[in-house]
This record gives sequence, C-alpha cells and structure tokens, in this order.
Amino acid sequence: MKATVYVTIKENVLDPQGTAVQGALHSMGFAEVEKVRIGKYLELELGDIDRSEAEKRIKEMCEKLLANTVVEDYRFELEG
Amino acid sequence: MKATVYVTIKENVLDPQGTAVQGALHSMGFAEVEKVRIGKYLELELGDIDRSEAEKRIKEMCEKLLANTVVEDYRFELEG
Repeated sequence: MKATVYVTIKENVLDPQGTAVQGALHSMGFAEVEKVRIGKYLELELGDIDRSEAEKRIKEMCEKLLANTVVEDYRFELEG
Repeated sequence: MKATVYVTIKENVLDPQGTAVQGALHSMGFAEVEKVRIGKYLELELGDIDRSEAEKRIKEMCEKLLANTVVEDYRFELEG
C-alpha cells in the first residue's frame, strides 16, 4: 500500500516561503506569477495492511506528526 | 491559470528528511511505515496567459529556481 500525503498551509495563514519564492520569480522576470503557496508532498510505503486500516493510520500520522493542524491542512491518497 | 508543481527527490538520491520522519513514525508506534520520501508541493497562480505559454513558463521556472534538477525531479499540472 502506498500513501501520498499533501500538507498545505491554511488559506488564511501567511506563507513567507511562498512569498519569498514569488519575489525571486519576479526578479527573474516571471512577472505573471501572482501568488505562490508552498506545501509538503510525502510518499509513504506501508506494509501489507488493508485500505481502511491504512486510512485510519495515515490520518493518525498526519494529526500527530506530519501536519501541524493549527496552521496546516492535509489530504492523502491511497494506492495499491 | 493555476499551476501545481510537485518537486521530488530522485529515486537514487538519499532523502535524510524522509529517513528522519520514518524514524519518528517508528518511534511513535507506526511500525508499518517502510519508506518515506519528502518533496515539495507548490501552487502558483498565474495571470491571464494561455495554456501552452503557461506550460513553457512553468517548465522554465522549475529548471531555473523551483527544482534542483541535479537531485530533484519535477512535474506539474495546469488548471483553469
């Protein structure tokens, strides 16, 4: 079972890293970039567990470690 | 036009951040996690440009700033 987790900064929370990248892109001539938000992308290989169990476990991992749910949202996809 | 960019570490390159997260998950009792790879997830809002132009520009941004193509791969999706 493979899980892909996306952790993004909540819409109403400032993203200084995104702002810095946007500034860099502008100074390189990419003036069309209006906004940049940066998040994390995680690929997890899980052992041989069934889908509903995997779903429960990944949710728990996100809540406890992978995302800071005060300022970040997460979503995930399971495959295999 | 909105672009979503995924930057991942190449398969044959070590990912110490992923290894650290895997270790943390193990020590928290998530023994089923066999491998963790961590990448970046970027959302870019582009102005009113057409799809083929956006594709060319995003590719250029990735090559020049967003990804280090020596050790990272990138892929992107356009929407809108």
